[in-house]
Amino acid sequence: MLWPSRIVPVLFLAVAVAVAPATASEAPGGVAGLLQRSAAAWNRGDLDTFMRGYEDSPETTYVSSKTVIRGYAAIRAHYAAHYGKSGMGKLTFTDLSIRPLGEDYAVVVARWHLALASGAHPSGIFSLVVHHSAAGWHIVTDHSP
Amino acid sequence: MLWPSRIVPVLFLAVAVAVAPATASEAPGGVAGLLQRSAAAWNRGDLDTFMRGYEDSPETTYVSSKTVIRGYAAIRAHYAAHYGKSGMGKLTFTDLSIRPLGEDYAVVVARWHLALASGAHPSGIFSLVVHHSAAGWHIVTDHSP
Repeated sequence: MLWPSRIVPVLFLAVAVAVAPATASEAPGGVAGLLQRSAAAWNRGDLDTFMRGYEDSPETTYVSSKTVIRGYAAIRAHYAAHYGKSGMGKLTFTDLSIRPLGEDYAVVVARWHLALASGAHPSGIFSLVVHHSAAGWHIVTDHSP
Repeated sequence: MLWPSRIVPVLFLAVAVAVAPATASEAPGGVAGLLQRSAAAWNRGDLDTFMRGYEDSPETTYVSSKTVIRGYAAIRAHYAAHYGKSGMGKLTFTDLSIRPLGEDYAVVVARWHLALASGAHPSGIFSLVVHHSAAGWHIVTDHSP
């Protein structure tokens, strides 16, 4: 075990600083970096960069409360249809845990919080399966009901 | 690739018959068998056998819509508190897909349908991360919002 525990609860903002990975595939820092970049892109309304967090594959899957969307292009279309730049709000994550699944996969569980311009503050729990390749870590399954 | 595709959409009841696995860790049949045994145990109100579908580990995680429960014992207590034998109803799965994550893990996405004695028919989408060990396939993360 290269990690102190197979489940690594981390404070999201702290981990990118605190963890010096031996290799990208071994480190929670790699996964936390992915989430950090995704949230930053979301918070500036940059859907193209936000989408780079997902693996560009027809097998990438997004699970909402009502539907299962398969394929990178369909997931992008879903986001584009539901969120305009002004409507994306400010996204933060808390209670992040990352559990490695072998060498090249991990499962991430965290709470998301969205502060919308309307004053609403929706929140919830999501889980991600993330995959490490030569291109870095990417989301292959996003369950955000 | 030992499977025809990395994502294998299967009809739940058909797969146990249709798939002759080369080894347990390679086959969707092994994962489908886990789900089939879990549903059968649920449908006869047998919580002990139902719980054998989960990996007996403090790291096993259940994610509901509102909370994250960590550890086999806590998950069992959650089920015991929320479901009595008469209240478990009849559970079926549809739209099952199984995607391998390396050799020893897979992610499962499916719809669940519950027919309760009250006449109510709740349903939803769940995702599981399952792990293969010498003891077979077991659930390590269950996201059932």
